[in-house]
Amino acid sequence: MFKWLSQFVPGHRRIYLDAASTTPVRPEVLSAMLPYFSDTFGNPGALYREGVHAAAALKEARIRAARALSVRGEEITFTSGGTEANNLAVLGFVRAELAQGKKPGDIHVISTAIEHSSVAVPLKELEKEGVRVGYVPINRDGLIDLSELRKLLTPQTRLISIHLVNNEIGVIQPLRDVARLLDEKYRKGERPVLHTDASQAPLFLNCAPERLRVDLMTLDGQKIYGPKGVGLLVHRRNITLMPTIYGGGQEQGLRSGTEPVPLIVGLAVALAHAVSERQVVTERVRGLRDRFLRELLHRLPQAELNGSAKERIANNVNISIPGVDTEFLVLHLDKAGIAVSTKSTCLSDEPQSYTVAALGKGPEYANSTLRITLHLHTTWRELARALDVLVHTVEKLKNLDRR
Amino acid sequence: MFKWLSQFVPGHRRIYLDAASTTPVRPEVLSAMLPYFSDTFGNPGALYREGVHAAAALKEARIRAARALSVRGEEITFTSGGTEANNLAVLGFVRAELAQGKKPGDIHVISTAIEHSSVAVPLKELEKEGVRVGYVPINRDGLIDLSELRKLLTPQTRLISIHLVNNEIGVIQPLRDVARLLDEKYRKGERPVLHTDASQAPLFLNCAPERLRVDLMTLDGQKIYGPKGVGLLVHRRNITLMPTIYGGGQEQGLRSGTEPVPLIVGLAVALAHAVSERQVVTERVRGLRDRFLRELLHRLPQAELNGSAKERIANNVNISIPGVDTEFLVLHLDKAGIAVSTKSTCLSDEPQSYTVAALGKGPEYANSTLRITLHLHTTWRELARALDVLVHTVEKLKNLDRR
Repeated sequence: MFKWLSQFVPGHRRIYLDAASTTPVRPEVLSAMLPYFSDTFGNPGALYREGVHAAAALKEARIRAARALSVRGEEITFTSGGTEANNLAVLGFVRAELAQGKKPGDIHVISTAIEHSSVAVPLKELEKEGVRVGYVPINRDGLIDLSELRKLLTPQTRLISIHLVNNEIGVIQPLRDVARLLDEKYRKGERPVLHTDASQAPLFLNCAPERLRVDLMTLDGQKIYGPKGVGLLVHRRNITLMPTIYGGGQEQGLRSGTEPVPLIVGLAVALAHAVSERQVVTERVRGLRDRFLRELLHRLPQAELNGSAKERIANNVNISIPGVDTEFLVLHLDKAGIAVSTKSTCLSDEPQSYTVAALGKGPEYANSTLRITLHLHTTWRELARALDVLVHTVEKLKNLDRR
Repeated sequence: MFKWLSQFVPGHRRIYLDAASTTPVRPEVLSAMLPYFSDTFGNPGALYREGVHAAAALKEARIRAARALSVRGEEITFTSGGTEANNLAVLGFVRAELAQGKKPGDIHVISTAIEHSSVAVPLKELEKEGVRVGYVPINRDGLIDLSELRKLLTPQTRLISIHLVNNEIGVIQPLRDVARLLDEKYRKGERPVLHTDASQAPLFLNCAPERLRVDLMTLDGQKIYGPKGVGLLVHRRNITLMPTIYGGGQEQGLRSGTEPVPLIVGLAVALAHAVSERQVVTERVRGLRDRFLRELLHRLPQAELNGSAKERIANNVNISIPGVDTEFLVLHLDKAGIAVSTKSTCLSDEPQSYTVAALGKGPEYANSTLRITLHLHTTWRELARALDVLVHTVEKLKNLDRR
């Protein structure tokens, strides 16, 4: 049934458990994309039939994506991925404030220490320019501390950027509580803009910005069985953003460049599938994940779960195994046909997980993280096999150490 | 044989003559891309097999593209398209100068008035910030005036951005002469950086940066039968650029975001094909174009060619037909199954062609442009039909006016 996930190594059935890093394009998405590469290939800006057909496909994709998120089509800007969408939100918003004459020192931004690098690095750049950035501490469960957030809020706070689901530990942040806090503290006009990177969420959570009560929201094609190289930013309340890429003025001037129609069509179809299947998928995957986690912690008592067990996305397991070189472990599991990761793929050069370090657990935990993220079609048989190999390999590595 | 170009409107054989706007993905490119959507789908940053295979494909694509351009792999940064590559070149270079402590007013950039919007608009943004930008005038043939360029050069000139081939009139700029001028005026260390947008060129011209003597060069997948949503910037001489998109540090930190492997593979294959077929294709297409242009000017004596006939890319025809509403003409031709354009697709909202206006021919010429750009597989039969319909339609429109 789900052979498409195991075809890439002929003759080998691989067990892929790193869906948080990237997902394959699902067949329905690929089929939807295919007509737009060589057949309906026109430039959506052109006047003639090839262009008109491409523009119609683009419009349909925009409507489909907008419906899936309960927003209006013009509230969506398609980008080249989650990274660009996060850059457009953070840099675009602050640069628009600067362009309106604000001084960098008069702009205050709040974020967390466990954002994805595509939010964290733009913020570092803005700090270099003099923008003030405060970071809400997170507690041992990986959740932001709302009372600390309340203390950070000032009349100069213009932007708050907090991810919905952490890409490493899968913890779900209480964005609605953040919005409620803003209701208390600010009147309508002065209210800071709330941005969330929801890239990890749509397969398992309702991401409608209205429901989350966010103003800006990032999504990424490659995390939801759509193509790599496409993402989107939702922007509401007529928020002014400066483009990060200038040119022909596509996407209402927010994102210039010929629209990559096949990719946008693919993203929209992937998103629509994610939303329509979400409840069934979530129930199934959470059941498997819970059973896996239970057995894992039972058979590997030295392992400790990172982040809240309760406020956690359905497909995420993240453990620390103190004393174990998990990078080595990942390579061993790979040889046995199992793909898992230590931490965020976007930080392969970092020695430790900054997310787990932020939980305050000490380096022996931050250095020994293992992330196991289930995909849509993960089976118990795969998980049971992964568990056996994992436990066996950890034992083997320990014995090696003892010698 | 070339059915793939006419399949998009079932039952209709369309005559597509707007290759300068965009090209379909050629079958060899699509075949090369397909395995990377759902099979070898891994994140190139991951440690396990799926990631390693994706990283290998990325590396191979980089080597292939580098070979096609006679540069080193690390001199290529893959982007989301030509627009982003132009932004990275212009904004990235100037912002790096600013980051090194230079004042905006001490940075002088030279460009032309007929650049693509993805160079022109970033330059306008930099001007707002105080950067000084000079524009080399072009002559009636659409070629930059080298003696005027010489006068513009100052010791503060840090960047020169001049496209290789104009996207509207197809004129080829004398970049090697520009480089020679810089040899005369500057010593090695102080020499301004020379950027060219060569997006329109690779199918018909040798774009090796070494040969063109440029330091930065932009290419775009969708102009060379590769996919939309991918392009590249070549950067040589260890030029420092600031990223336009920040995050996980991919592409040597110049372009963060998970690399879209299928698109990059497609771009590299498209580029390799362009280079290997260039001579044969150019000869064939130029022959057809010359014959078409001759007959066109003979049968439509009121039409005037815009831009040099000699220094012109092989597939481009751009005429003005004073007194004719060419937008209306494009729609008429479309109904007859022929796709051509008035000007750059990226400027569909502008009333006239700023390129033809810059030739100094007056508004009756800039308002009545028609661009006809042949693709790889254009036949004489198609061109003869297009010519008949074009001449017939112009006559018809005139008679309508007379009534």
